[in-house]
Amino acid sequence: MGDLKRLAVLGSTGSIGQQTLQVVRALPNQFRVIGLAAADNIDLFQQQITEFKPDFIYFRAEEPRLANVSSQFLALDNIAALPEVDMVVVATSGKAGLSPTLAAVRAGKNVALSNKESLVMAGEIITAEAKQSGAQILPVDSEHSAIWQCLRGESQKAARIMLTASGGPFLYYTPEQLNEVTVEQALAHPSWKMGRKVTIDSATLMNKGLEVIEAHWLFDMPYEHIDILIHPQSIIHSMVEFADSSIKAQLGYPDMRLPIQYALTYPERMPNPELPGVDWSQIKSLTFEKPDFDAFPCLKLAIEAGKKDGTFPAVLCAADEVAVELFLSWRLKFSEIAQLVGQVLSQHQPIAHPTLAEIIKADGWARERLNQLAGGE
Amino acid sequence: MGDLKRLAVLGSTGSIGQQTLQVVRALPNQFRVIGLAAADNIDLFQQQITEFKPDFIYFRAEEPRLANVSSQFLALDNIAALPEVDMVVVATSGKAGLSPTLAAVRAGKNVALSNKESLVMAGEIITAEAKQSGAQILPVDSEHSAIWQCLRGESQKAARIMLTASGGPFLYYTPEQLNEVTVEQALAHPSWKMGRKVTIDSATLMNKGLEVIEAHWLFDMPYEHIDILIHPQSIIHSMVEFADSSIKAQLGYPDMRLPIQYALTYPERMPNPELPGVDWSQIKSLTFEKPDFDAFPCLKLAIEAGKKDGTFPAVLCAADEVAVELFLSWRLKFSEIAQLVGQVLSQHQPIAHPTLAEIIKADGWARERLNQLAGGE
Repeated sequence: MGDLKRLAVLGSTGSIGQQTLQVVRALPNQFRVIGLAAADNIDLFQQQITEFKPDFIYFRAEEPRLANVSSQFLALDNIAALPEVDMVVVATSGKAGLSPTLAAVRAGKNVALSNKESLVMAGEIITAEAKQSGAQILPVDSEHSAIWQCLRGESQKAARIMLTASGGPFLYYTPEQLNEVTVEQALAHPSWKMGRKVTIDSATLMNKGLEVIEAHWLFDMPYEHIDILIHPQSIIHSMVEFADSSIKAQLGYPDMRLPIQYALTYPERMPNPELPGVDWSQIKSLTFEKPDFDAFPCLKLAIEAGKKDGTFPAVLCAADEVAVELFLSWRLKFSEIAQLVGQVLSQHQPIAHPTLAEIIKADGWARERLNQLAGGE
Repeated sequence: MGDLKRLAVLGSTGSIGQQTLQVVRALPNQFRVIGLAAADNIDLFQQQITEFKPDFIYFRAEEPRLANVSSQFLALDNIAALPEVDMVVVATSGKAGLSPTLAAVRAGKNVALSNKESLVMAGEIITAEAKQSGAQILPVDSEHSAIWQCLRGESQKAARIMLTASGGPFLYYTPEQLNEVTVEQALAHPSWKMGRKVTIDSATLMNKGLEVIEAHWLFDMPYEHIDILIHPQSIIHSMVEFADSSIKAQLGYPDMRLPIQYALTYPERMPNPELPGVDWSQIKSLTFEKPDFDAFPCLKLAIEAGKKDGTFPAVLCAADEVAVELFLSWRLKFSEIAQLVGQVLSQHQPIAHPTLAEIIKADGWARERLNQLAGGE
């Protein structure tokens, strides 16, 4: 048992959390689940506890009705920093990932990071804390995992990153068509199975913008050297160009279990029969095109916020999170997501090199402001 | 001067040799050319000697008329094993590469190997000698350089290799059309600028077959795990699939100077303004298809010879070298290259785990036999 990697999975009932546990199941005798944390879906959480018998659990609701549970209840940040844990999988969605990510990083853990908002909101703080504690941040996003795999063993930094993007379900829509998009259409992503928030962000391309900011922090890469390539087949998950102009790419079917497993088993790679190799006889053509920044203004908003830095990225995240919630409850039109997020950003009084408290404050301001604007104030 | 990498370039007036010296020129203060060797083109060789002032030279003709040369004449194998040399670039074409490659490997040199025939003919001997002497074989072929770059930093072997192939100038030709192919057509390769022998081998796909055997030896990969993918754009230079089904690919414009430079500067990568980065706005689509083993029987002959091993690959190389010479002098039709090489292979009495002498003998037998068959005997 001594060689098992000991995991805490935060957000275990979400899409990435469930797929993390699928990988754990598919690779027997590799992992021991020490901690599980979830925000909702208590029935699934109950099943996960019964199956994985974690020592520690957290559930967002105050008094969850869990049966026959011998696991100890603990605060989310405490699970992220448990001495018994080797690797913390942060698979929570949105702002809720920031605090446990910081707790895990400060505790010097290996952090398999799927939550992109934490790096977008507080990239400067998190990367500085990781440097100090020796924590390793292992990206779980497919694009950042691809870049990380391409950089493996290289003695120099990348000269340029080509972040690929499926383009989402509305790739060739006109602005008029985008205006009439429904929630159901936006939730039907052509290549990736993901949670609701990130699926909408993928439809607006906000998700790709957040990934640009994430790549900036993860790989210490100037924004000028991060390009976006629309690649609708989602087979190339991103590319890296080196000083000598050689390019490396990582490829595979669009299946989040591969980047999850790569982070979980790193530096090893393990066969997993549930992850089939690409059948090249079925792949006729991989195509590439430039993103349409006019049709997808969220992409431009995100990159601008990243370049301006300070509290702008936190405001971007917060405003987008609220706007997506409003869209999902039919209270905003699709095109209004970008409009309102843009307005909130334009009204923001930024702080450079903010403290965590200043980031949280900017986040709160942005949420309130977006709600006000949506309500017609 | 102590930090300069000291090179011997064998085959300096050929295509790869000239491009090697272009890289040396483009990266000033990195290299010192200690030795130069060439088989023909004495005027160019004279220029190279004047420019690079090597200490040692070799020229195949007995008494070359070289002017104002203070370099010392030496046998080819002695240049390959010079104590003053850090890296030997074997850029000779065909069988002539075998002896100096072995000499360099036995002397424990880093060998930047462009000559694929040496590994095809004597892969078992060369890899065993390299293991014993500690020599490193650094592939210069674009495909093998791609695989080598993809494997960089990985702790496990590849699970599968996808060797890409442009398909050559006759990709969609019918057998009838292939029968009427001229020398000029065969020498006009759509994507790569190469020497005459390898250009014809690319048109028959014999070159891809030799590369399969080369990959087998370089990466200790069973033939069953080496696939060939026709990729006419020649942007992806090959791919590697790992145990977890993740794939890495290396990409770039088809320009031999990139794999040459990678081997020369390894483990560093250096900016070279003559090697432009890929302009993705110009690349709309990368396509893939299966090779047509019936239209290109040389591919099948080579893989079969590799699988049977022993003296078969040496016979393949020798018969092909003679057949290509006869084709280039208009004495064979294009389709007869495969026919005659196939006949020579089918008549061969193989020896398993041959000695170098047995390989040389098989080579001589195959050349004679092919000439006989071509002459109607």
